[in-house]
Amino acid sequence: MTYCVGMVLEKGLVLMSDTRTNSGVDNISVFRKMFTWQVPGERIITLMTAGNLATTQAVISQLEERTKEPDERDNILLKSPTMFQVATEIGRLMRGIISERQDANGVKGRGRFTASIIVAGQIKGMEPRLFMVYPEGNFIEASLDTPFFQIGETKYGRPIILRGYDRQMSLEDAAKLLMVSFDSTLKANLSVGLPLDLQVIERDTYEAGHQHRIGHDDSYFAAISDGWGDALKNAFHSLPDYSFYRPDD
Amino acid sequence: MTYCVGMVLEKGLVLMSDTRTNSGVDNISVFRKMFTWQVPGERIITLMTAGNLATTQAVISQLEERTKEPDERDNILLKSPTMFQVATEIGRLMRGIISERQDANGVKGRGRFTASIIVAGQIKGMEPRLFMVYPEGNFIEASLDTPFFQIGETKYGRPIILRGYDRQMSLEDAAKLLMVSFDSTLKANLSVGLPLDLQVIERDTYEAGHQHRIGHDDSYFAAISDGWGDALKNAFHSLPDYSFYRPDD
Repeated sequence: MTYCVGMVLEKGLVLMSDTRTNSGVDNISVFRKMFTWQVPGERIITLMTAGNLATTQAVISQLEERTKEPDERDNILLKSPTMFQVATEIGRLMRGIISERQDANGVKGRGRFTASIIVAGQIKGMEPRLFMVYPEGNFIEASLDTPFFQIGETKYGRPIILRGYDRQMSLEDAAKLLMVSFDSTLKANLSVGLPLDLQVIERDTYEAGHQHRIGHDDSYFAAISDGWGDALKNAFHSLPDYSFYRPDD
Repeated sequence: MTYCVGMVLEKGLVLMSDTRTNSGVDNISVFRKMFTWQVPGERIITLMTAGNLATTQAVISQLEERTKEPDERDNILLKSPTMFQVATEIGRLMRGIISERQDANGVKGRGRFTASIIVAGQIKGMEPRLFMVYPEGNFIEASLDTPFFQIGETKYGRPIILRGYDRQMSLEDAAKLLMVSFDSTLKANLSVGLPLDLQVIERDTYEAGHQHRIGHDDSYFAAISDGWGDALKNAFHSLPDYSFYRPDD
């Protein structure tokens, strides 16, 4: 499984992904699911991937044209004029890779080999953009009403984002919110695991901002994880108590 | 969809279920998913059901022997000597009903018509017991390590129960905890809906304790639902702030 979240804020984009891949519970590996390309001062693009690892690795390789000799390669992500074009291209490549694999194995419909990709970034002169690309090759864009996308094991960590998100919040607070959301998910699903990758894209900088890999020895994440249990208990006790004998019964 | 939770505490059992059933988003109904039988002073048994409604209604009907004339009926739940027997009997009935329906429709494996049932109760002279019965007819019992069962849409509401549950907590606090868990689920999944049914079984009373249907006009639930967002935000802000410039980076 996987858990990745991309979030649009007034001040930029904040992205977090886990790194666990598994094929059964006895075959677990660490693979990066977050990939960043930049031309500092001109553009920054980050992808996060969920689903079949062979499919998502093939998409990344084809985006970088790794089938060609190194000096003939032309990175699609760096030459697309708009983020919309980037998302279109990723959708086209992914759909092609999935169909090819399904056809070769006689799989019909939406079956094995599928994947989803969150695409985030900003190109000079344009707004920061956030897309979710589906295995069918189509995609949607984040909006004021739906300002974040999750892929993978999305449910455990969703309630806290729904309650905590605020478009005006600082990028630091958004990173902290994602840590709480990831902590809830890690506690509930073994197939989402540390380390986590964090990438911040500050609006109008067109380059990678704060980035950090959160490992097992990360003292801040440990403080969040340990503190959240008590903080939740305090929150719970701050609400009015229930009584079995109520005037309106 | 459905959401039901059963919880074992030192002081007894607390159970909550929603009432929404849907076949597509344009065919939504209210059906009770919680059923209680008692012989006051001798036993109390409560079931909560998730899954195919025709299957769970058939299980309930057969438990009450509704195929027979009213005065020849012998309620299986009221004559079983132990809660273990009750769970066994429910598993046997459910498996039979599902197989029959699957065979008639040529369905193989674990497919349509499946259901799960949470069985809770206490019979005089024995401990309060909580079971989860699977569509295959087998079942598991709650323990000190796993003191609650959820069925249906379980993920959104799970993190708060994991953090908030304490075997020593009062039955009132357990009811409040379930309301917070249900509120998170209602906010995230349209197919789980009000009203909610709450049933408390106090240890060694052998009869239904506090029971309550939480409707749209329930002032306490509204206070929990409204207050939880702010309480979570306060909990979030009570944790140490994240900084992009950290000494250990």
